Amino acid sequence: MDAHVDTRARVEAMIARDNCARALGLEVLAAQPGQLDLRMTVRAEHLNFLNWGHGGVIFTFADTAFGMSSNTHDRVSVGIDAHIVYLSGVREGDVLEARSREISRTRRKAVYRVDVVRPADGTDIAAFTGTVFVTEQTLAELGL
Amino acid sequence: MDAHVDTRARVEAMIARDNCARALGLEVLAAQPGQLDLRMTVRAEHLNFLNWGHGGVIFTFADTAFGMSSNTHDRVSVGIDAHIVYLSGVREGDVLEARSREISRTRRKAVYRVDVVRPADGTDIAAFTGTVFVTEQTLAELGL
Amino acid sequence: MDAHVDTRARVEAMIARDNCARALGLEVLAAQPGQLDLRMTVRAEHLNFLNWGHGGVIFTFADTAFGMSSNTHDRVSVGIDAHIVYLSGVREGDVLEARSREISRTRRKAVYRVDVVRPADGTDIAAFTGTVFVTEQTLAELGL
Amino acid sequence: MDAHVDTRARVEAMIARDNCARALGLEVLAAQPGQLDLRMTVRAEHLNFLNWGHGGVIFTFADTAFGMSSNTHDRVSVGIDAHIVYLSGVREGDVLEARSREISRTRRKAVYRVDVVRPADGTDIAAFTGTVFVTEQTLAELGL
Repeated sequence: MDAHVDTRARVEAMIARDNCARALGLEVLAAQPGQLDLRMTVRAEHLNFLNWGHGGVIFTFADTAFGMSSNTHDRVSVGIDAHIVYLSGVREGDVLEARSREISRTRRKAVYRVDVVRPADGTDIAAFTGTVFVTEQTLAELGL
Repeated sequence: MDAHVDTRARVEAMIARDNCARALGLEVLAAQPGQLDLRMTVRAEHLNFLNWGHGGVIFTFADTAFGMSSNTHDRVSVGIDAHIVYLSGVREGDVLEARSREISRTRRKAVYRVDVVRPADGTDIAAFTGTVFVTEQTLAELGL
Repeated sequence: MDAHVDTRARVEAMIARDNCARALGLEVLAAQPGQLDLRMTVRAEHLNFLNWGHGGVIFTFADTAFGMSSNTHDRVSVGIDAHIVYLSGVREGDVLEARSREISRTRRKAVYRVDVVRPADGTDIAAFTGTVFVTEQTLAELGL
Repeated sequence: MDAHVDTRARVEAMIARDNCARALGLEVLAAQPGQLDLRMTVRAEHLNFLNWGHGGVIFTFADTAFGMSSNTHDRVSVGIDAHIVYLSGVREGDVLEARSREISRTRRKAVYRVDVVRPADGTDIAAFTGTVFVTEQTLAELGL
């Protein structure tokens, strides 16, 4: 990444362009190359038919942290695969954090682990692992 | 499942109670015990900051087919883990189908494979595998 | 793949060079570009401390079918990630088949699903999904 | 686990009964409830037809650390699913460590992350996540 590009500003710009991220009400807590911490609050529209937070919402939250943290370097990265283990259910009003950490990066691919937690009581909510393919396209070409 | 319970009606009732499923605009194409085919159209609010269908939306679509097909028997089932491989990107306006098939069911757990496809050109979009824990609670207790 | 290369002969050559595959006693049932069926018999040395077939053996069996089927085209492919769900346990003497099928292939990556089954009673043993990175190196360069 | 049961001794007893673990030449570095560090050296018989360490061997190494660490409490646990991402290849003679950590445990299931690393140069080799089903059977019933 260009030394003069601010990672947090870049992530905020991604969120501003990402309808899903905005629908989740994501907030950036911390951002640096290869690392991103996001926060969201579980709302009524995030519940499934059993009245628990929807697995798809938890996944999308983790996946967004993963995808955006993989785009904190200079090249556009696209998801190849993702795995999630659901550890504990969430209810309306729960405040969650997703913490994405790059555990490997080569010229062609990069791997991230994301922990979704509920800081209020320290409960682990989900454990996520995702891999991206690193393309030739630069983020600058996208105005990011 | 009780022989007199209609699986399609049960899934429609789940969707009616599921804010996420409704937000995706899901339509039931076919439903029987252990099998479910759903349809959705990719809309502007489903795009990521690269203007492709969001990985989280594709996942939520597959995950919903998985979760609801796992609840077509008599007991409430909850997701343990899920894995998704992204095969091809989608754009606004694409019509997608998610086809969930039960590949194993024991007293305690069940496993499903879900194919997400774009029928217009037969392209495979994602390959999903998910496992549920089968609880003691009946769907009837939830009015389903 | 060169039209005149016989896929089964190529896979047999891979097995001849692969100590792990030979240790499992793998037999080729059917092979064509992107598809491979292998057979093995569970022996005493494949059991874990609970006297069931070791998860690692089942995985290695599926993974070998996956890896070799991904190398039935002209380019060397290397594993990126794999997911396995264990559906049913196996015992000493069980005869197993692994059936790998290519579900997607682009210039850079390819995805396979592998079913491990026990044909004697039709039981599904494991469901495996794996992704490879397609390198620039040709199999011919390796003498395969 | 009974306070008077030594976790390292229990794991050593599992390895002594596990033909696969013995074939890998596993050594216990550290063991406590929910945590296990194992070591192995990559030998000629662990290589694939490309002369790299076989993905199945890396998986079996991680899977064994996972499975045995899940059996450091009082109940027998059996694997439900596992996901592995391959980060870097290994060669004959490489010394590897697998570090399994329990990240969640309920009455019915438990989840572990395993890092496979090459300590000589600090390279990450694989990132593994596995889930077990916790049975009613005690390890004591198995003489462990």
